[in-house]
Amino acid sequence: MRIYDWHAAPNPRRVHIFLAEKGLSVPLEEVADGMKLKEEYKQNFPQAMVPILELDDGTVIGEAMAICRYFEESYPDPPLFGTEPISKAKVHMWETRANEEGFLAFGELFRNTHPDFVDRGLPGSAEPIPQIPALIDRAKGRIRRFYKKLDDQLSDNVFVAGDSYSVADITALCAVDFGAWTEMGVADDVASGCPNVKRWHAIVSARPSAST
Amino acid sequence: MRIYDWHAAPNPRRVHIFLAEKGLSVPLEEVADGMKLKEEYKQNFPQAMVPILELDDGTVIGEAMAICRYFEESYPDPPLFGTEPISKAKVHMWETRANEEGFLAFGELFRNTHPDFVDRGLPGSAEPIPQIPALIDRAKGRIRRFYKKLDDQLSDNVFVAGDSYSVADITALCAVDFGAWTEMGVADDVASGCPNVKRWHAIVSARPSAST
Repeated sequence: MRIYDWHAAPNPRRVHIFLAEKGLSVPLEEVADGMKLKEEYKQNFPQAMVPILELDDGTVIGEAMAICRYFEESYPDPPLFGTEPISKAKVHMWETRANEEGFLAFGELFRNTHPDFVDRGLPGSAEPIPQIPALIDRAKGRIRRFYKKLDDQLSDNVFVAGDSYSVADITALCAVDFGAWTEMGVADDVASGCPNVKRWHAIVSARPSAST
Repeated sequence: MRIYDWHAAPNPRRVHIFLAEKGLSVPLEEVADGMKLKEEYKQNFPQAMVPILELDDGTVIGEAMAICRYFEESYPDPPLFGTEPISKAKVHMWETRANEEGFLAFGELFRNTHPDFVDRGLPGSAEPIPQIPALIDRAKGRIRRFYKKLDDQLSDNVFVAGDSYSVADITALCAVDFGAWTEMGVADDVASGCPNVKRWHAIVSARPSAST
């Protein structure tokens, strides 16, 4: 078993944190070279995304949360996707929001501004995808709305999906820290009106899993 | 218990099909008026998205797949999220792809072209979001890549995540049929080179759940 990894990138970090919370260790194979995936990896996996989990029987699982799902079902404790119907649904809801409204918005801002991504406006395409300047402001608006929604949710919840730490916290943390690659990180102006996000960010960042 | 619904819209359809496959019936309350959500609903749920599940104890679950997750955990048979770690991970992987690479791409094309959505380029925002013309071609490229990826996957799988019908089929079907609201539906040119998608589409569309 191994995970094809780009250790510094935000999306694989979701899996690193998840495995650390579970107390699991899986061999990682670095497939990036600086700010790009290695050519050999792109030839083997033309979809060119990370992370990918390869099992001993050759089964290949892509998508960060699908990899986490595999380990959750194989090693249920501690539970990170909820424990009964309502908590499982709330974790699913908030992980979806942290991904679609947070993670993907930070990615949109980063990919449409960073000079190394000038022809990589979207992930997972072998064709060049030009940056679209109009997306910069749109992404900033998405991020402002995400911070506000997260702050409201954390005003009466310790963690993103309620009383327990879950994959919703993992995706939200990786999203917000992705913001530090842009001008929209938790230390920047946009988050200054979000005290609940700042409190939560300090708590989840202090867990050993956040430093893996 | 009830579901706030926009019956004709693609996202709530994911839940309609899921409930029909489970043999469950949940009261639906229509909250759209033509091509817009009713003002009263937007005031009660400022996030202004559908569907939303409201449980008898007042718990509110948003996000289509989170609602499906609630019913999967409450009524496990027939299983629609997989049955053991590998199949659960594969369903999660392909549902994620059907959503992020399919559903969201069709939504991007629709919202950036349809005259009724001129100030609704993204869902879930109270502020107007202008359409971005450059997104039209980008969305078409995303959709072409999604059709190709789905066709490859269906070349040796009966269903999207393998041998069994799952939520990955539900999201992929609602995505592809969303295409019929644009010029990128399964009957249009772009899908003409995707025989496996066409075969699969005929099979899943013939299930009674597809007509709910």
